[in-house]
Amino acid sequence: MANARVAIIMGSKNDWDTMRPAEEALEGLGVACDVRVISAHRTPDRLTKFLAAAEADGIEVVICGAGAAAHLAGVTAAHTLLPVLGVPIDSSALQGLDALLATVQMPGGIPVATFAIGKAGAKNAGLFAGAIIARGDAEVRAKLEKFREDQSAAVPERPF
Amino acid sequence: MANARVAIIMGSKNDWDTMRPAEEALEGLGVACDVRVISAHRTPDRLTKFLAAAEADGIEVVICGAGAAAHLAGVTAAHTLLPVLGVPIDSSALQGLDALLATVQMPGGIPVATFAIGKAGAKNAGLFAGAIIARGDAEVRAKLEKFREDQSAAVPERPF
Amino acid sequence: MANARVAIIMGSKNDWDTMRPAEEALEGLGVACDVRVISAHRTPDRLTKFLAAAEADGIEVVICGAGAAAHLAGVTAAHTLLPVLGVPIDSSALQGLDALLATVQMPGGIPVATFAIGKAGAKNAGLFAGAIIARGDAEVRAKLEKFREDQSAAVPERPF
Amino acid sequence: MANARVAIIMGSKNDWDTMRPAEEALEGLGVACDVRVISAHRTPDRLTKFLAAAEADGIEVVICGAGAAAHLAGVTAAHTLLPVLGVPIDSSALQGLDALLATVQMPGGIPVATFAIGKAGAKNAGLFAGAIIARGDAEVRAKLEKFREDQSAAVPERPF
Amino acid sequence: MANARVAIIMGSKNDWDTMRPAEEALEGLGVACDVRVISAHRTPDRLTKFLAAAEADGIEVVICGAGAAAHLAGVTAAHTLLPVLGVPIDSSALQGLDALLATVQMPGGIPVATFAIGKAGAKNAGLFAGAIIARGDAEVRAKLEKFREDQSAAVPERPF
Amino acid sequence: MANARVAIIMGSKNDWDTMRPAEEALEGLGVACDVRVISAHRTPDRLTKFLAAAEADGIEVVICGAGAAAHLAGVTAAHTLLPVLGVPIDSSALQGLDALLATVQMPGGIPVATFAIGKAGAKNAGLFAGAIIARGDAEVRAKLEKFREDQSAAVPERPF
Amino acid sequence: MANARVAIIMGSKNDWDTMRPAEEALEGLGVACDVRVISAHRTPDRLTKFLAAAEADGIEVVICGAGAAAHLAGVTAAHTLLPVLGVPIDSSALQGLDALLATVQMPGGIPVATFAIGKAGAKNAGLFAGAIIARGDAEVRAKLEKFREDQSAAVPERPF
Amino acid sequence: MANARVAIIMGSKNDWDTMRPAEEALEGLGVACDVRVISAHRTPDRLTKFLAAAEADGIEVVICGAGAAAHLAGVTAAHTLLPVLGVPIDSSALQGLDALLATVQMPGGIPVATFAIGKAGAKNAGLFAGAIIARGDAEVRAKLEKFREDQSAAVPERPF
Repeated sequence: MANARVAIIMGSKNDWDTMRPAEEALEGLGVACDVRVISAHRTPDRLTKFLAAAEADGIEVVICGAGAAAHLAGVTAAHTLLPVLGVPIDSSALQGLDALLATVQMPGGIPVATFAIGKAGAKNAGLFAGAIIARGDAEVRAKLEKFREDQSAAVPERPF
Repeated sequence: MANARVAIIMGSKNDWDTMRPAEEALEGLGVACDVRVISAHRTPDRLTKFLAAAEADGIEVVICGAGAAAHLAGVTAAHTLLPVLGVPIDSSALQGLDALLATVQMPGGIPVATFAIGKAGAKNAGLFAGAIIARGDAEVRAKLEKFREDQSAAVPERPF
Repeated sequence: MANARVAIIMGSKNDWDTMRPAEEALEGLGVACDVRVISAHRTPDRLTKFLAAAEADGIEVVICGAGAAAHLAGVTAAHTLLPVLGVPIDSSALQGLDALLATVQMPGGIPVATFAIGKAGAKNAGLFAGAIIARGDAEVRAKLEKFREDQSAAVPERPF
Repeated sequence: MANARVAIIMGSKNDWDTMRPAEEALEGLGVACDVRVISAHRTPDRLTKFLAAAEADGIEVVICGAGAAAHLAGVTAAHTLLPVLGVPIDSSALQGLDALLATVQMPGGIPVATFAIGKAGAKNAGLFAGAIIARGDAEVRAKLEKFREDQSAAVPERPF
Repeated sequence: MANARVAIIMGSKNDWDTMRPAEEALEGLGVACDVRVISAHRTPDRLTKFLAAAEADGIEVVICGAGAAAHLAGVTAAHTLLPVLGVPIDSSALQGLDALLATVQMPGGIPVATFAIGKAGAKNAGLFAGAIIARGDAEVRAKLEKFREDQSAAVPERPF
Repeated sequence: MANARVAIIMGSKNDWDTMRPAEEALEGLGVACDVRVISAHRTPDRLTKFLAAAEADGIEVVICGAGAAAHLAGVTAAHTLLPVLGVPIDSSALQGLDALLATVQMPGGIPVATFAIGKAGAKNAGLFAGAIIARGDAEVRAKLEKFREDQSAAVPERPF
Repeated sequence: MANARVAIIMGSKNDWDTMRPAEEALEGLGVACDVRVISAHRTPDRLTKFLAAAEADGIEVVICGAGAAAHLAGVTAAHTLLPVLGVPIDSSALQGLDALLATVQMPGGIPVATFAIGKAGAKNAGLFAGAIIARGDAEVRAKLEKFREDQSAAVPERPF
Repeated sequence: MANARVAIIMGSKNDWDTMRPAEEALEGLGVACDVRVISAHRTPDRLTKFLAAAEADGIEVVICGAGAAAHLAGVTAAHTLLPVLGVPIDSSALQGLDALLATVQMPGGIPVATFAIGKAGAKNAGLFAGAIIARGDAEVRAKLEKFREDQSAAVPERPF
């Protein structure tokens, strides 16, 4: 995972299916990712250790996916100055509403940028991380522009 | 705060009005408390430092009050084996629903015992901490029994 | 069920699948359970009879699982000084939100410690009961510590 | 309270302001009420004692008002064959949604007839109790019919 | 349907699966029902015609089952003095929450007694109609008492 | 109210404050309104009588405002072929969510065009009625266009 | 698509299954439709271009179907004076509640007439568009009346 | 507003009170802002014109605040490659839940980074914009670090 500029961390191995679109979006923009399982609850020390080194290791953005009482993004944001993106995952009886509120309703002072529940949110978190990186990287910006053009062109005129 | 057996921590000084009933309930049971402001987001290191020493310092139960995307109880539970009680606080536009879900919907493995939103929950967290301590302390148990009897006796027959 | 220190009661036989993780968690900690079906609505007398004897029978904690307008934990708490843990069960069209609110929103004076909806909540109620017992039982405490360490170690580094 | 045919019970003295419209509606129909404060949580024995005698004492319908994790109507229904009407009261941060779900979502077998949150629900519970009694009492039926006619006539043609 | 004392009406033929427990409960109590499909929206005239004659035809209670923006019970209650019971049906994307609120939140003056969403609510509406009728019919009362005893006896001691 | 082309009806005199923006919007477009209080629950016959004559009386659109278990728009739609617009009113503990769902979730076959809860919805219902009428009335269309232009021009560049 | 009087646009090809009932309803009324996929987010220019020409092209009503943070109807309404009907689509973890609120809660000034989530809403949007057109088209009005009569006649007397 | 690196736009002048903390946060970091009122619904052309020039004008991040069916952030994101941050504003009966869902639940392909409802969200959006800019600006990074340290230091030890 040399050269990774974005870290994608998730609370459980089971979250990978939901979070994969984040990595795919970044791959499409030519941005390398470091993908990890780190639980804010079960492996808190692994999280602080990872974050303590992340910026120096070249990570520019951290994407966090978690479900239920999702604390991963908030705890991550408490330990880094890097932009933290949160993806709520639908993994409880409440269909992700708990994860959404636990991620987005951060008190003032420690921001978490939150995206939609599930795969759409993961994809958009990846694209958004790309947009941040594109601020200072013309190649990524060009790929992002191309992605948007292709995306527009792929919308059919008729549904049938 | 010598002899404190219960810690009451809250994410913000503003939460004290809501959390005070927890301390009052424990005071009524003759249980000393250590009351602190510790934010999971703004002072994460203060939290882990406090928890690392809590059990050795004689703390038997930790009560956490927090609002919005309330992470305090969950992060506390990740760092201690002590029973952790969570009180959701109504401090956002969503009237505590966010704090409730962010506290109660903990994933399996790291339990947080959750109580009602606001002062009723704070009072009950205090009483519940007393009930835990009463398991091994006949005096506290006697006071708890007395509290319950007095509480029953205080219900009037008629509302007018 | 001799030597049972924790009672696990549920409102219906159908709730057993959800509640089993509570018993498994306690079994893992070496704590014996007394598992029963008692409906607050259909067998209220069975409930009061059971609770009248529970403490003398050696029960230290009561775990209650119920769905819909879940009253089991609240009624239990009204009849005992023992710590009562409530697990909301998803058994109606509202996916457990009704059971969650009916369990957690107890008015001040009669506490119910509430956990997440469904199996995660049942597992955590079991672990939390273990944490209460661990206060006075070094063996249970050691097993709880071991459980947490094993749990941390079981989190993989990568999701793929 | 001789001749009372309807019992109106509420969990707290504070609920009287909300429940008074139930008594007023019944008074308007010439039906005497027995109004009491009985908490399902703080005075469970008072509740069972009251219900054990209610039918013999001439009570034909029981109206229960309670807020938060409202258990009063459900516990009442578990102890009587009389029709039980539940009025959810808005007394928590969740504005009565908790009381509504805790009252209406009764599992099959023990029915509670539920009305709207707050005063509108209390008034309607009173009118509904009157409608039950009107089945066998021509005088009450006539008064109910008159009430409805007056109510229709009182709707103005224009709002200004 | 001679001798029918309870009318069970529903907004659509598709609601029958949900409403059948109402009829079964009443059948178990020896109370005959008149079961009909009448839509408040698609057949409003059929509804007013039915209700105009219902009381004279011997109907003592009307049970209404409807989903989505469920208006059937409220419109029924506006056209009769008989007790009207409403059963919200889960037939939209919102899983019955819409039907519940559209049924239970009746403004003051026109009461609808509301039960749980779905089959549990239908069963309870049937039992509740039986409880109303039992006020003046010793045979039905005896059957209701027997039903409750059998129901209690059917709860097993253990879930396994 | 001669020449009225839009009827604005509301369930209670208290709803007028909320509904007035509908009339003001139509007045601004030069469209006359017939404003009435008609309760679907308390004056059902007044409603059917009004609707039976409405189209012949020159009414082209009916706007209905109601709160709680709002049935007014749905019942209106069941009795007319005219376009029916529904405005949910915030008049219960649930802040209009009940009225919104009871208005918008109409089953297929009887449409109600629903607008936002409260005054914004009333204003928009008035504008929308104007847009319907503008289809065949160049003067109204011109006024609607002018309204939109003025509205755009009234947005300031800066908030301070 | 010559002679189309109603445009049905949707944010994604996947929405067609939900939106088809709108077209079927209009087809039943003899009203031709222009059905298109236009995303407010991915093809904003296609949307403004389409709307700039719509009225001149003979379009009298625009029906918009979209899910999640559904912006299609609102953006459409911002660019046309034609009546805009919105159909929320259930395409996220939140089952259409997000799409409903994002469509119906339009601020005052730019109205969107909103219908139920999903197919029922699509059907009703089609019927409502027909009702608008029927204001000035006797043939469509006759077909609408016939549809309503047939619909009433199709309701069976009994559900079995 | 020369040198502005962040644009803060809001749907209405009334939103300024809520959005001011975004500007204050950025001011504290030494980042100049361009603050504007632009309504996605009432001034759509002003929005597209502004966004067409924004990047060339030196804007690096766009913060959008809007209430109710909040479309401003989503429409903005559809017209720019810049990172778009959305702040839901509590300006309707639903207390910002509508604005939250209308902002955060963006479909895959067009990302909006969403923050908490109201002032906390505005403050965090400002801080987050600062964190993006800090990626390539050591001075801003230093100020952000200082802000976080001061914020931690400002948390008192005790609430009394």
